[in-house]
Amino acid sequence: MMQGVLEIPEELQRLQEVVASGFERVEEVFATQLVSDLAPVDQMCEHVERYRGKMLRPMLVLLCGAASRTDLESILRSDSLDSIIDDAHITCGAVCEMVHMATLVHDDVLDEAEIRRRGKTINAMKGNETSVILGDYLIASAYELCSSLDSPIPSRIVGKASAVMCTGELLQLHNRNNFELDEPTYFQILERKTAALIGAACELGALSTLGFDQQDHPITHALKGFGCDLGVAFQIQDDVLDLTGTLETVGKSVGRDLDKGKLTYPIIHHLSNATSATRNKSLELIRAAAQGDQSQLADLIDLINETGSIQATQQMAQTYVDRAKARLSDIPEGPGRPMLQLIADAVVNRTH
Amino acid sequence: MMQGVLEIPEELQRLQEVVASGFERVEEVFATQLVSDLAPVDQMCEHVERYRGKMLRPMLVLLCGAASRTDLESILRSDSLDSIIDDAHITCGAVCEMVHMATLVHDDVLDEAEIRRRGKTINAMKGNETSVILGDYLIASAYELCSSLDSPIPSRIVGKASAVMCTGELLQLHNRNNFELDEPTYFQILERKTAALIGAACELGALSTLGFDQQDHPITHALKGFGCDLGVAFQIQDDVLDLTGTLETVGKSVGRDLDKGKLTYPIIHHLSNATSATRNKSLELIRAAAQGDQSQLADLIDLINETGSIQATQQMAQTYVDRAKARLSDIPEGPGRPMLQLIADAVVNRTH
Repeated sequence: MMQGVLEIPEELQRLQEVVASGFERVEEVFATQLVSDLAPVDQMCEHVERYRGKMLRPMLVLLCGAASRTDLESILRSDSLDSIIDDAHITCGAVCEMVHMATLVHDDVLDEAEIRRRGKTINAMKGNETSVILGDYLIASAYELCSSLDSPIPSRIVGKASAVMCTGELLQLHNRNNFELDEPTYFQILERKTAALIGAACELGALSTLGFDQQDHPITHALKGFGCDLGVAFQIQDDVLDLTGTLETVGKSVGRDLDKGKLTYPIIHHLSNATSATRNKSLELIRAAAQGDQSQLADLIDLINETGSIQATQQMAQTYVDRAKARLSDIPEGPGRPMLQLIADAVVNRTH
Repeated sequence: MMQGVLEIPEELQRLQEVVASGFERVEEVFATQLVSDLAPVDQMCEHVERYRGKMLRPMLVLLCGAASRTDLESILRSDSLDSIIDDAHITCGAVCEMVHMATLVHDDVLDEAEIRRRGKTINAMKGNETSVILGDYLIASAYELCSSLDSPIPSRIVGKASAVMCTGELLQLHNRNNFELDEPTYFQILERKTAALIGAACELGALSTLGFDQQDHPITHALKGFGCDLGVAFQIQDDVLDLTGTLETVGKSVGRDLDKGKLTYPIIHHLSNATSATRNKSLELIRAAAQGDQSQLADLIDLINETGSIQATQQMAQTYVDRAKARLSDIPEGPGRPMLQLIADAVVNRTH
């Protein structure tokens, strides 16, 4: 995400190099933790690679770790760059990515169920079982790795965030095909499903620098809050892309939320702002999409645009990004702040 | 399991009362940990009740905790019974049961897949998704609860045991429909899938009494080893019951292992001891069962009995029980030992 997509200005290059070298260590720890003495397990873990995403969470751990230092600027000018990111940051980064990947693997179980509904069976089923256990293996490995740290506090944070994530998923599942889903519930789902782990990643970054007993430190609070707001913005943007993107730009099939009967912000905003006639027409198209008929998705998007709901959604994402950035006034001045601001802006400006 | 099934002799009654009162506290902590501020989550958690089993793992935590005390006998004669089982035992007991229940819930996903294969679809699928997330919620809650302890060591033990369990499941999945599965691989699966968590439960019981830094203490070693051996015996007995039990006695449908293409000890022993002609006939019946045709299960069991394989399996389970009991010579004398011996015997003598 950082390289390529982000334009890193000259003065942040050195910080970017530090984070990039931390990334390599995260990847090493990640791979080492999953190695098993059983060949079949190793074989199955190779599949995990295909879930590798943007590494947003490890990046936030590393950057928040760096940004928590009051001496970041002077250290970046010195030769002891290695001291900025230590083993705790690396461990926490790998743990967050592992937990995130476990949710992707388990989401896949639900998706494969969908595919099966339309035809494929036995092979998809074998994949299904493997996905369940592989996801469990990732979660267990994440906890094992996290508990290798001296303090039980990171385990507490990760355990809590994971449990909250599950309640978000359960709440979402409970509201499947609820075409009257309201805004507060939508945000409750987002805060739990997505924001909790991203907030935890930022918190763990801060604590890895400040000490794990510093959960009440203002910097910890600020960065955890930054992560939570950013997480909400991130998920809102995901929801927009699922509706307006294409397979080509997003890299995965679009319209999946509707297909699963999941109402997202653009739809919720649209339904509560449309005329009664439009609302009925839209509901018809939404119901059709939820039943697997995506042929009228373009018509639905036209209706959604009539109420300006895509724009309103992007504005909402921007509001959360602004809120996230405002939190950064409580962290030390220096290159950490503008770098985190860049990341925050990238979250809403991304097209995939 | 203890009450009803086990005949507790007079001199162990007081220890049994202590464990029974500990049980109630485990159940309280278990329920409290899963309470959510979201009504739909609480609703779904109620389903979890139907997975409630024999509570073998919490019982072992509590008993091993008591059995690790050199002063158990004198304390049992005093009024300060409450001091035998403290919060750490209760927490560890609830954690082990939660991890175990998560695996049951996720096993159900695989089973429901089977049911679906034979007809049911949409409802089963919704159940499937709920099972995946509910299992994840149980695992996450277990880790959150475990990390509430002051030391990261119990989290390490539980994380490690969970990861090992998953590798056992993956190994088993990898060997699905492998009709040449050999004994060493079978035991490798058992040790990982079942024995690791039971061993961890016993270890956590000991450490909750001795102190979490006492992983190398001879009592810890002895009880962990006791649990691992008992776990293998327990799973072998499960495998026998799956083959020879009835829906009535076992409380769940039998023949499920074959149905899933899982070869268990009686089958492995039989195939390697039968004449070539019998072996071919048996393989035919096994293949049929693995494809869902259970009509000739009785014929298969007759063939299996010809090689004395059920008896040999029970003998193998007994060997592991004896090994488990022998480990107890390294723990303090007193009522803990005979009580654990009773449990060990009950594992192979049970019919459900």
